[in-house]
Amino acid sequence: MGSVDQQSLAEYCEQLAKTTHAAAGKMALLSAEVKNRCLLLAADLLVKQQEQILAANSKDLAEAPKYNLTPAEVDRLKLDAKRIAEMAEGIRAVASQRDPIGEVISSEVRPNGLVVDKVRVPLGVIFFIYESRPNVTADAAAICIKSGNGVILRGGKEAVYSSRAILQCIWQAAEQTGVPKEAIGQVEVVDREAVGQLLKMSRWIDVAIPRGGKSLIQRVAEEAKMPVIKHYDGNCHIYVDRSADLNMAGEILFNAKCQRMGVCNAAESLLVHRQIAPRFLEVVRDRLIPFGIELRGDSEVCKQIKDAKLASEEDWGTEYLGPILSVKIVESLEEAITHINHYGSHHTDAIVTNDREAAETFCRGVDSSAVMVNASTRFNDGGQLGLGAEIGISTDKFHARGPCGVAELTSYKYVIHGQGQVRV
Amino acid sequence: MGSVDQQSLAEYCEQLAKTTHAAAGKMALLSAEVKNRCLLLAADLLVKQQEQILAANSKDLAEAPKYNLTPAEVDRLKLDAKRIAEMAEGIRAVASQRDPIGEVISSEVRPNGLVVDKVRVPLGVIFFIYESRPNVTADAAAICIKSGNGVILRGGKEAVYSSRAILQCIWQAAEQTGVPKEAIGQVEVVDREAVGQLLKMSRWIDVAIPRGGKSLIQRVAEEAKMPVIKHYDGNCHIYVDRSADLNMAGEILFNAKCQRMGVCNAAESLLVHRQIAPRFLEVVRDRLIPFGIELRGDSEVCKQIKDAKLASEEDWGTEYLGPILSVKIVESLEEAITHINHYGSHHTDAIVTNDREAAETFCRGVDSSAVMVNASTRFNDGGQLGLGAEIGISTDKFHARGPCGVAELTSYKYVIHGQGQVRV
Repeated sequence: MGSVDQQSLAEYCEQLAKTTHAAAGKMALLSAEVKNRCLLLAADLLVKQQEQILAANSKDLAEAPKYNLTPAEVDRLKLDAKRIAEMAEGIRAVASQRDPIGEVISSEVRPNGLVVDKVRVPLGVIFFIYESRPNVTADAAAICIKSGNGVILRGGKEAVYSSRAILQCIWQAAEQTGVPKEAIGQVEVVDREAVGQLLKMSRWIDVAIPRGGKSLIQRVAEEAKMPVIKHYDGNCHIYVDRSADLNMAGEILFNAKCQRMGVCNAAESLLVHRQIAPRFLEVVRDRLIPFGIELRGDSEVCKQIKDAKLASEEDWGTEYLGPILSVKIVESLEEAITHINHYGSHHTDAIVTNDREAAETFCRGVDSSAVMVNASTRFNDGGQLGLGAEIGISTDKFHARGPCGVAELTSYKYVIHGQGQVRV
Repeated sequence: MGSVDQQSLAEYCEQLAKTTHAAAGKMALLSAEVKNRCLLLAADLLVKQQEQILAANSKDLAEAPKYNLTPAEVDRLKLDAKRIAEMAEGIRAVASQRDPIGEVISSEVRPNGLVVDKVRVPLGVIFFIYESRPNVTADAAAICIKSGNGVILRGGKEAVYSSRAILQCIWQAAEQTGVPKEAIGQVEVVDREAVGQLLKMSRWIDVAIPRGGKSLIQRVAEEAKMPVIKHYDGNCHIYVDRSADLNMAGEILFNAKCQRMGVCNAAESLLVHRQIAPRFLEVVRDRLIPFGIELRGDSEVCKQIKDAKLASEEDWGTEYLGPILSVKIVESLEEAITHINHYGSHHTDAIVTNDREAAETFCRGVDSSAVMVNASTRFNDGGQLGLGAEIGISTDKFHARGPCGVAELTSYKYVIHGQGQVRV
């Protein structure tokens, strides 16, 4: 569609939102069988029509220099037979999950005989704004179909041809299985203002989910007139308690910091109890410095590790997403909890300890979406926690916290059966 | 504190928000026993100190003319020994409810041995803005204490003395039982701008709940930088199906329309299946017109009931909150569902029918917080549905839908126990 004037842009967006809303109403009534049949067919079509998808992907790759993509970004954009097969497998995994819609969450008979059921229903229409790999298009569409929602997809312009080719397969599967195709909508205009227009349409859109850089999330949170599921920083901590198994602590720290650095559940900050600091800082130095990790410590840490730099106040609140770790000695478990709640981002924090009571105090006291005892922070992920595919990890407390899978895209209604009861 | 300049107002609000936030952190860690002890003592103190409360209430009543309160509003403002006893009973009822905090919502052992628990936690700090009766202060404080949240109360200025006297009892109970008094905060300045300032403080406040007129809710939804639980109109429908027991339908209609007219779960619109319209419209006329209800019908309804007025397009979407009912004849169950989803407010809608399949289609198809089969719409109320005291009825789908009690003021976190697991 390309660029358009403001009035026709507003009309286009309203039409898209209304159409998706109307189709979402039908989507909400589909049986699990129909939705699963659609997903399985879509997975098959992705594999069968991979030539078209790869051709579309080549177009995106040819235009990549226009968008100044880094080599890593180009690599994430690139599809091949293996990646398409993985994408199809991801959709099949969503199909195999339990259908949340219609689930009776609770049921109670009131003294007057009314039967009060709380029943799970879809949220409605999801506006998903993402700057990412083509497979996110397939994942997001699959999760929304499974949860009975409509979705308006707004992917990054750098993957526009690939996304469209993937959606063609999903639309084809929808048509052949009786799923309303219009429930899977796509913003076809590149105009950035289209996002602004859609974010106003709280009448037709129930929730906005931005996935990408901080500035995108801030913009969406600022402009949206509907609720937003936000995915902000992960400034994740590892606290090594005085009773910790220092070997285990070393393994967990190394994994959390080094296994993958550019992700939100990687560790960014280490807190060490004073009693075991002399011994454990040796472990830290020996494991991390040879791996190229820069340590930024408080003055005592710097005394013990001569290669460490002095941390600034800002370091305690920073998500590095790279080979840096801030390190601080604390006097007590309580100081660790207070530090994490103050400087952390309420994402994922871990304690390493052999003291059950300390573990429990930590889990109760740290206000984060996931708290780990003797495990790597890297486990805060929908797949790892058993939620299946995820559309993001919420750093909010409201509605959904932590990984958002199919069930997190639902609401509920009260369904009440009587025999003529009236209120007295 | 009275009126203050803008800078000190901003400082005052930030101080209040920060203090409540810090105290909420302690509140989250309290045991059920401590919270219940505080609530039971607060209830006792309300009764014991009723002289002070009644004296404060007299001051509010003396100032009522200043605020142009209607006689009904003055009546709602007025306290006496019986109403104070009821208020205390309400707090005791909250104390007797199950404590939601710490509840393990789900628990799963992953293939790698990680134990993944989803545990219920408080939301944090609730900003509650209400224009209402003094007892709402007691209810709101009790619900927030029970759910382990901090709360910032901003009641209507017309009940300021009464609210403060009630809060004195609650604060005294908190101090004597080890509950952090600062977790129950109150906006002491009358300046309207204080609300605007607090609505910006998403760092310290987790959710805003406005309860009052539409303009208040709109203002809060517009200005808030944190999530808002909204309580909009109840344009509630009764659909009388062709298979309905017309006697039962008459009773339900009469109750839903006439038992209490100024409330959100009262019926505002009646849909009648064409097949039973001739007989049922007689019932409508005979039951409602003598009771002083004005009927606004479509042209066919007006033909059959000569006292009915012709409804305008606007009538179908109007919450009258008074002695008016819109009436329409529909051709089918499907038309009824479409009409309700288009003109209704997604609050509460009922079907009267003896056809199980029609009931099920209605319940699935109508997108409202509560759908009723053969029961009055007036039952969509926290107490009636077994949720206990409520802080409002949400017309949102996000986070909480329908009545919001103690459990709706909670979030969750993942608590994960390992034995040294790292991600591969």
